[in-house]
This record gives sequence, structure tokens and C-alpha cells, in this order.
Amino acid sequence: MKFVEETKLLTHRGTMAILNAAVARAEALGQPQCIVVVDRSGEVLAEIRMTGAKFLSRKSALAKALTAASTGVETTSIPEAVRTYIGLATDGSVTGLPGGLPIVLDGVLLGGIGVGSGSGDQDIDVASAGLAAIGA
Amino acid sequence: MKFVEETKLLTHRGTMAILNAAVARAEALGQPQCIVVVDRSGEVLAEIRMTGAKFLSRKSALAKALTAASTGVETTSIPEAVRTYIGLATDGSVTGLPGGLPIVLDGVLLGGIGVGSGSGDQDIDVASAGLAAIGA
Amino acid sequence: MKFVEETKLLTHRGTMAILNAAVARAEALGQPQCIVVVDRSGEVLAEIRMTGAKFLSRKSALAKALTAASTGVETTSIPEAVRTYIGLATDGSVTGLPGGLPIVLDGVLLGGIGVGSGSGDQDIDVASAGLAAIGA
Amino acid sequence: MKFVEETKLLTHRGTMAILNAAVARAEALGQPQCIVVVDRSGEVLAEIRMTGAKFLSRKSALAKALTAASTGVETTSIPEAVRTYIGLATDGSVTGLPGGLPIVLDGVLLGGIGVGSGSGDQDIDVASAGLAAIGA
Repeated sequence: MKFVEETKLLTHRGTMAILNAAVARAEALGQPQCIVVVDRSGEVLAEIRMTGAKFLSRKSALAKALTAASTGVETTSIPEAVRTYIGLATDGSVTGLPGGLPIVLDGVLLGGIGVGSGSGDQDIDVASAGLAAIGA
Repeated sequence: MKFVEETKLLTHRGTMAILNAAVARAEALGQPQCIVVVDRSGEVLAEIRMTGAKFLSRKSALAKALTAASTGVETTSIPEAVRTYIGLATDGSVTGLPGGLPIVLDGVLLGGIGVGSGSGDQDIDVASAGLAAIGA
Repeated sequence: MKFVEETKLLTHRGTMAILNAAVARAEALGQPQCIVVVDRSGEVLAEIRMTGAKFLSRKSALAKALTAASTGVETTSIPEAVRTYIGLATDGSVTGLPGGLPIVLDGVLLGGIGVGSGSGDQDIDVASAGLAAIGA
Repeated sequence: MKFVEETKLLTHRGTMAILNAAVARAEALGQPQCIVVVDRSGEVLAEIRMTGAKFLSRKSALAKALTAASTGVETTSIPEAVRTYIGLATDGSVTGLPGGLPIVLDGVLLGGIGVGSGSGDQDIDVASAGLAAIGA
């Protein structure tokens, strides 16, 4: 292993494309959402709280985005049996709540998106619409 | 005084318009920025960290947005003589750093925008461009 | 009881030996890990996040190291029945997740090591390899 | 601007090389140090607290590393006139204290190193020795 490796990062153009598509999908569903996008180290790239969305869903949407960016898989992959324990051990950052998806393009993990305020299915739907906008 | 009063709130369409215009202006200036929009209670409505912006400017941009939303005036209005003391007493939420503007429409305070990562003049320029997008 | 007692402390040479051995073992397993070493007061002595490790595992690895250093026994010794309650009462610092081992040499508790990002067995394996490097 | 850009990341081999070289230099100087390495989003990659180093220097070393990674320049580049204000607005994350250097290789910003516990000159010296180990 060398000291440095090649990788890729999501530009703000990519982030804005995700945000716009996710908001459009949430509007189409008639379900206002909190949407958060983080980079592969978990630092926030963008977020939006739609009119009528629960403001505390900002926090759960962030946890979903963090979990997906950290693990590289959907939040629902966290086994039921350990959710409480891992949640506690990570200040609530690791969550098994639906609505967190990794952002993966050409096999490279770029970060995560977390959506919260709707039902689990709606949250996943909106997150997926965001990813589709950049072909992820 | 009655128990309840009429007011106005910034919708996510308004927030997105501000964000898009601010990003466009920052791109035109060639200065990547962190841009944060908060509502009149200081809760974050949206934010974006542009590619190449300093990630710690997320924190100062938030402080700028909070200060402007809380006071209803530009951050630079905080008197020099009290900046350190007010900053200490508010966990750093009140700041006199340039780049925080209140969002006021038809005389109603809707929230604040904070911009950071450029020079003070650039931060104010980008924040102003954001507000102009909604006629504020 | 006298006012003062003899004790021992882990030097940074000891800490580096643990870290190097743990990293080598994780590489051999092909499982990148977050590894944290704390002293007997729970203050961090060293940590490393290996390339490809989950960044949120830094938090759970810290909790594991803290728990082991505080109790003097392996994290899995925390009874299942109280894990949630103790986790809540300690801000998540006490955890029963596998991968936390006390650092004990010649019967003296020197601190704890916590490893996270792999399976429970892998985490314990890597932590043990770290301890073996100093004969603990 | 495309949705994704090429970049590079520091591997744990690179991080360990930095840590080992920095520790060796601090030993040569006879000044124990706290040394922190963060990635380009400010997430900790590694840290070590040497025997005899001030434990609170972990915090200032982290701030130094964060500042250098965020700005891409040495911490001492933060203008004296704004240090208090930017420090307050960023929860102390931005600091002008000497001992924080950006990690730049082939023109790519990979993160930052922060060193604290010695004099300003010693801190810079040890940080520089760390960077030299990977040719940065």
C-alpha cells in the first residue's frame, strides 16, 4: 500500500443535482422532507428542510446520511439486534432507520444521503430519486 | 396584544432560490463558499458547501446566519467592543464577522443567510446575491 | 491506606507497539479497522483509522476502549440485561459491543484498547494482537 | 464542472509514516508532543499523546490540524486581528496557534497535521518532520 491513493469526490454541482431531484420527488409525493448529503468522511455537503417537514428530522436524516457514508450500504442493513447498542456507542450517529443510502458512482463511495420526515418507504423513495440524478 | 399574530415564513422554494443564486454568484466570483440559511428561530433551512470551500467555514457561516436572523440586522452591526463578550456568552453563535444578512421581505423578518470562506467583501456579495433572488 | 501508591503507566513506545501490531493484524485479516487506545483515566493515548474503515467506528471503538479501561475487563462482560441502561446513563461510553479489552501488565491496569469496523470476532482478534505486542 | 472530480486520499500507511517520523523527531528534541492527523474533511485519521505531553494539548493539536486542513495553509496564516472572532465562531476549531500544517502532495490537499505541547517552534518542527516522511 502506498502513502496515497486515487479517489473521487462529489462536486457541489453533483450535490445540487441530488438536492434538486430529491426535492422534486418529495413535492411529487406531497411529502415534505429533510434531506442531508454528507461526504465520505461524514462532513455535511448540503441539506434542505422542506416547508412542513418535521424539524427534528434534520437530526435523523443526518444520522442516516452518516451511517450510509460510513458503512457504504443502506441504513436498513444494520442488524436489528445491535441497533440500540451501536446507536448508543456512536452518539446516535449509526442508525438502522430507513432512508439512508450510500452515494456510489463507478464503484467509488462518495458519501451518503439521508432523508427523513415521511414514512420509511417515502424516505427511501426520495433518497433514491436524489441518487438517480447523478446516475448513482 | 392578541394571543396570535399573522406572520410569514420562507418556503423551501424561496430557500432553494436563495441557494441557487448565491452559488451562481460564488462561481462567477471564482470563490467557493459555505452558505447557510436559517429560519427566524435559527433552525437551519438549507446549506451548501461548495467544492474547494473551507469546511470549517460551515461553522462561521452558521454563526453569521444565526446572528443576522436573531438581530434582524447585518452581522457587522455588532459593536466591536462587545464582540468577544457576546461571542463567549452565546457559545459563539453571535458573531460580528462580515457575511451575515437578515432575510427581510415586506418588512417581515424571515431568517438569515450566512456566507463564509471568501474575503469579507466576497461573503457579503454572495449573501446579497442570494437575497436578491427573492427580492429581499 | 497511604496517601500515595506506586503504579505504572503505558508509555508512547508501548502505545505505538500496540498500534503497529494491531494494524499489521488487521491488514493480515484484510479488514480495515479503527483502533483506539486510552489510558487508565480514559484519556486517548492514540488512535488510527485505517483506509477503508467505517469512520463512525471511531466512536464505537472509543466507547469500547473506555469501557475496558474503566471496568478492567472485556466489554462483552457487561451483562446484556443492563447494556441499554448503562449506555444511556453514561452518554454511550459504556458498551457491551465486542472489541474492547483492558490493557493489563503484571496485574496492573494500564488502560484499554477498542477496535471497531469488522465483525465482533475480528475486532477482538485485532485488539488481542495489539496487546500481545507488549506482552499484555 | 462535472458531478464528480478526481482527487487523492492519504492511506493509513501514509498516516503511520507521518506519526512515526513526528514521534521520532519529538524524542530527538526531548519534547513530548500530542500529534493529530486529520483528512481533508477534518475527520481524525490518527493521533498520539506522547509520555509527558500535556493532555489538553490534544485539543489544541486537533484545532491546529483542522485549521490547516480547512484552509490549506499553515495555522499562523490566520490574521492576528480576527483570531478571537473566528475562534469563537467556529467553536475553537480555527486557531492561529503555531504547529498546524496542511498535508499537500503533488498539489493535492490531503488533510492536516497538528502538534502541540512544546514551544511554537518545536510544534512546527515536529509537524514538518512528519510531513517530510511522505515527501509532503
